Amino acid sequence: MNLTILGCHAATPKISAHPTAQVLEIKGHVFLIDCGEGTQIQLRKYKVKFSRIKHIFISHLHGDHFFGLPGLISTFHLQGRETEMHIYGPKGIKEAILLLLKLGKSWTKFQLYFHELESNLAQVIYEDDKLTVETIPLIHRVYTNGYLFKEKPGERKLNIDAAREANIDLSYFNKIKMGHDAPNKEGVYIPNAQITFNPSPPKSYAYCSDTAYNPEMVSQITDTTVLYHEATFLKTHQELAEKTKHSTAIEAANIAKAANVSTLILGHYSGRYGNLELFKKEANEVFDNVLLAEDGKTFTF
Amino acid sequence: MNLTILGCHAATPKISAHPTAQVLEIKGHVFLIDCGEGTQIQLRKYKVKFSRIKHIFISHLHGDHFFGLPGLISTFHLQGRETEMHIYGPKGIKEAILLLLKLGKSWTKFQLYFHELESNLAQVIYEDDKLTVETIPLIHRVYTNGYLFKEKPGERKLNIDAAREANIDLSYFNKIKMGHDAPNKEGVYIPNAQITFNPSPPKSYAYCSDTAYNPEMVSQITDTTVLYHEATFLKTHQELAEKTKHSTAIEAANIAKAANVSTLILGHYSGRYGNLELFKKEANEVFDNVLLAEDGKTFTF
Repeated sequence: MNLTILGCHAATPKISAHPTAQVLEIKGHVFLIDCGEGTQIQLRKYKVKFSRIKHIFISHLHGDHFFGLPGLISTFHLQGRETEMHIYGPKGIKEAILLLLKLGKSWTKFQLYFHELESNLAQVIYEDDKLTVETIPLIHRVYTNGYLFKEKPGERKLNIDAAREANIDLSYFNKIKMGHDAPNKEGVYIPNAQITFNPSPPKSYAYCSDTAYNPEMVSQITDTTVLYHEATFLKTHQELAEKTKHSTAIEAANIAKAANVSTLILGHYSGRYGNLELFKKEANEVFDNVLLAEDGKTFTF
Repeated sequence: MNLTILGCHAATPKISAHPTAQVLEIKGHVFLIDCGEGTQIQLRKYKVKFSRIKHIFISHLHGDHFFGLPGLISTFHLQGRETEMHIYGPKGIKEAILLLLKLGKSWTKFQLYFHELESNLAQVIYEDDKLTVETIPLIHRVYTNGYLFKEKPGERKLNIDAAREANIDLSYFNKIKMGHDAPNKEGVYIPNAQITFNPSPPKSYAYCSDTAYNPEMVSQITDTTVLYHEATFLKTHQELAEKTKHSTAIEAANIAKAANVSTLILGHYSGRYGNLELFKKEANEVFDNVLLAEDGKTFTF
């Protein structure tokens, strides 16, 4: 699981502080999460293979999270893309994108599927044999969802030495990996646990931005491997965080602690702070494993 | 008259090839012309004073000429702007911008005036005591206008030595600059031409992008000081220019020559060419004074 931060700064884009966008590589997918203005340039800068993106998840319709989307879609079109594209986001996103394409007479040749969201309950919005994606209802000034990416448990790992020693024919090996017992050459069934190892525990990634402090999300994201939680403000601006429905670093850390996640990544920093280390310092008061998002940084889990 | 190129490349934005946007400083105004994605970052990079922009002219509704506009407006809002803003562009631009602001519940506190264009005839769309702005009808795949910025003739310059020698009271000096004759202390009227110099000739700037080769614009832009004309292709791609309704460098130069402009600036280069000097070389075959637009370059006239 690789997470590349294309932008992790709040509000207005600056030369070296890009608005929110990130790429999650998980189980063969390349998911784009949010798409602030300039995302397509960041994708080029950090050498992400555009064409592999088939699913784009937009949290909410503030400009710093989606004004890069029309341009990215146009670029896919100009590049001659033929592969379908799925866009998940709040109701209204389809109208906006289609209007912009219509005004420019720039209809895409590839299929564009919009999956518009309007529920305030968590729901599974994507599923295949390797993973699921769920919405995480967030609290912000407009309708907003985070996204929870959860790997499904993998196949059991064959203990090849044990299976051979037990005299099992290799034609059974695939079934064994799926958890079945298997007969040896004498016809005696060998219990699966004796000839396999446990699979690697499935990983998960929760993206929560933008949101006010929202303990209601804790049960849904409990034991998540990595939580990206916005931390727009430091605690000196607690009041401003409440007013604008954003979080402080310590609030993000409280969520991470309550949800028992392994790693917390902070981002969506307000431009008013010179020293981002202060976000980590404040979060560390309640939670140990805190990392700071940084434009261009890739985290591997 | 200063012209700062924020971006002068066609189609998809790249790390060092930004889509169209430029700033024209003329007679105390700071005009923004077109606004491709990332324009606000370019404005910061080249230290243009944002707040002085009060008029934005959009040529057409292809993304590489206007997808930076919603973000720029949002940024003005976040910066607490109170000064009104005027936006000139094809019909539809108002609906698009208002929809995006509505979806983000991001109504601006400053007044936003849309001047929507739909005429196929040149028209004066802005006028004050120092200059006029006219549309230049262009030929492209969607409804498109160029813009012609024309200074009005300035006041006559007082020949202060001649005026004193003629024994004219200084209370008449302002009237003299406006072209009036004035009496000397003996009551004899002195002809204006005797006590003034001609003003500097008014300057003008014609912005023509995007457009197919369009000799119909020549009469309107004849004797213009500076013509910015798109040159998306070299002559090897003449056929592609015709198909996509763009121009080649030599076509731009033919317009410059026919219109007897002083200076031709080329821009809107297709990304397929490594050596931009070839654009100048081809244009120079028919017109001498050719300059190449370059992201970040300021031309002073």
